Amino acid sequence: MLSERMLSLGLQSSVIRDIFEYGLKRKKEIGNNNVFDFSLGNPSVPPPKEVNQILMHLIETIPAEKLHGYTSGPGGQCVRSAVADYIKNSFDFAATSDLIYLTCGAAAGLAISLNALTTEQDEVIILAPFFPEYRVFIEHTGANPVIVQSKTDDFKPDFELLAEAITEKTKAVIINSPNNPTGTCYTKETIQELADLLNKKQAEFNQVIYLLSDGPYQELVYDIELPFIPDYYDNTIIIYSFSKSLSLAGERIGYIFVSPKTKNANKVFASICGAGRSLGYVCAPSLFQFLIKECIGLTADLSVYKKNRDLLYNGLINLGFEAIYPDGAFYLFVKSPFKNAKKFCEKAKEYELLLVPSDSFGTQGFVRIAYCVSTEQIINSLPAFNKLAKELNLL
Amino acid sequence: MLSERMLSLGLQSSVIRDIFEYGLKRKKEIGNNNVFDFSLGNPSVPPPKEVNQILMHLIETIPAEKLHGYTSGPGGQCVRSAVADYIKNSFDFAATSDLIYLTCGAAAGLAISLNALTTEQDEVIILAPFFPEYRVFIEHTGANPVIVQSKTDDFKPDFELLAEAITEKTKAVIINSPNNPTGTCYTKETIQELADLLNKKQAEFNQVIYLLSDGPYQELVYDIELPFIPDYYDNTIIIYSFSKSLSLAGERIGYIFVSPKTKNANKVFASICGAGRSLGYVCAPSLFQFLIKECIGLTADLSVYKKNRDLLYNGLINLGFEAIYPDGAFYLFVKSPFKNAKKFCEKAKEYELLLVPSDSFGTQGFVRIAYCVSTEQIINSLPAFNKLAKELNLL
Repeated sequence: MLSERMLSLGLQSSVIRDIFEYGLKRKKEIGNNNVFDFSLGNPSVPPPKEVNQILMHLIETIPAEKLHGYTSGPGGQCVRSAVADYIKNSFDFAATSDLIYLTCGAAAGLAISLNALTTEQDEVIILAPFFPEYRVFIEHTGANPVIVQSKTDDFKPDFELLAEAITEKTKAVIINSPNNPTGTCYTKETIQELADLLNKKQAEFNQVIYLLSDGPYQELVYDIELPFIPDYYDNTIIIYSFSKSLSLAGERIGYIFVSPKTKNANKVFASICGAGRSLGYVCAPSLFQFLIKECIGLTADLSVYKKNRDLLYNGLINLGFEAIYPDGAFYLFVKSPFKNAKKFCEKAKEYELLLVPSDSFGTQGFVRIAYCVSTEQIINSLPAFNKLAKELNLL
Repeated sequence: MLSERMLSLGLQSSVIRDIFEYGLKRKKEIGNNNVFDFSLGNPSVPPPKEVNQILMHLIETIPAEKLHGYTSGPGGQCVRSAVADYIKNSFDFAATSDLIYLTCGAAAGLAISLNALTTEQDEVIILAPFFPEYRVFIEHTGANPVIVQSKTDDFKPDFELLAEAITEKTKAVIINSPNNPTGTCYTKETIQELADLLNKKQAEFNQVIYLLSDGPYQELVYDIELPFIPDYYDNTIIIYSFSKSLSLAGERIGYIFVSPKTKNANKVFASICGAGRSLGYVCAPSLFQFLIKECIGLTADLSVYKKNRDLLYNGLINLGFEAIYPDGAFYLFVKSPFKNAKKFCEKAKEYELLLVPSDSFGTQGFVRIAYCVSTEQIINSLPAFNKLAKELNLL
């Protein structure tokens, strides 16, 4: 009677959300400080103070009917120009505002791009482990998600498996560097190798393969430099969100940037506009469009995440855990001492440590620890990890 | 290569937008005050002053990481409760927060609801003239839009035509009262007749037919009282937006309310949650969720629209034009003196009057005048309408 797919999606309880809800309940029972909830990827550092200052200034100076009024579908022209200028200046890349489409965050950007590019029977490749909604967005278009496991030693792409997976049906590949859930970043060598493979396959099948780069963690890199992907591969579409860089996750503001080197870039952009209309996106929230114009390039104080990473990674390694060294994002991917990661999470729960099994992300045998929490929580959790490690005889 | 449907939608120039762009160009040539642009339905009155006051207060008092952070998918619990309480108090109707889903405006609410309810081969009935995006949203789900012309004397539903159009494939009927583009409001007698027909057809085909009430103009009624539709028909889903009532069109904030009397209301709601996920809606913008909690029930000074309506309607009738008396919204639907409304719009353009032909709304032979403009513009435009009427020998 209803759409069975939507109903089943709506009834599916999210593993992450369930753990978070359990944490809330448990905190009521034994106190906030005695539960170590590492489940959610919700930024813990506040936005830079300029965000609220600029919001107040905008409210005080721009006529309210303009500030809160419709913008055109792809966003206000001055905001799109500011984004294009930022890309030009930061990456020395010829971005133009007519290929910038402001969105209600990266989820909207991905859903819109996938609807713009794909049709039924197309295939879209995602590299596991991956953000679970990728699969939902792809399936909504009628295309088929094709899952390629990454190498489990460093969670870089397994190029042999990837090469096998690309067929004449492949319309796009989604990458996410820095990665949720592993924290892995792709270096320029990795991106070059990916670009070479995609170019070879494009030639082999005489068709375009789009590279969708989901980049909300772009600024959250700690010791390395990220390559700017359109420098390496022409048919690139960047999906960006200010959720993490400016700690504005709830405000839903981001953009799609179609590389001008993309084949028929203007048609791709038009198709994005059409998809935005079809999905009911009228424009990105106008106040936050104005905000972005003023504070693009600013970031929240991301140094907390680096501090947390160092404390947590070193702490766990010293206790005998195995983990992927995360160059970016705010996630630590820890090898489960049991084959079954869910069993490990249950065991960790006995020590009030709330971790997420990697199964939700399309890979088995790991747990995700979201370290976008207070540094105090990291420090206070280490004795609990210690007890857990001892029970499991890790050292 | 791309999605042909999305590309074609993206390349389609919007008639309304084209007229608006022409207006901007023309204003540069001959001055702002010499062009009478009635093309866009963009609220001209500012939000109530409380909106900016409350925004400032929220920014000053709520920790920024909470104010701008994720809420749950259907919205913050306290905001959903505030909406449910508002419905309870205003309409004496047993609304519950667990059937309220906050959305990025009414367009998102419609797209999400249609995706939740329909599958391919379903039919969704829309009553012409209609907001053009209805067709886009329906077609995106794979369902077929079925267009039923309204009666051209008062633009109430033609119940004979509607009865013929309802089949075993009919999943939903969309209504929009007060209506864009006609300004027509459905009285309780009309809604009762509609409910009776739908109930009869539900029994005949032994299936649920949902009534989707797109109600962004709910507060913009001038002399009459609107019926609360869930009082009349059980399987009702209300799609609401604060765009017009609070003049917040760019901020994208509204809600879906599933009547608790809807068959399997909880399943319908779950399906809405699934559809929201699939379309990339993570949550409605968080700052504006907090705002709505504080100022639900307030409205901008809507008296300007009534004043404009009276001036414009009486002015045009006195000049010999025929128009539908609008009980609500901010649109006047004027009969084209030519059979071809586009030709009439071209003629009006010679007098710097920018009107929208009704063809865009699925009905021929009328033009839409959006009177959400300054009262001054209405007054200053009347001499131009006078000259136009004289040339056309209307009196």
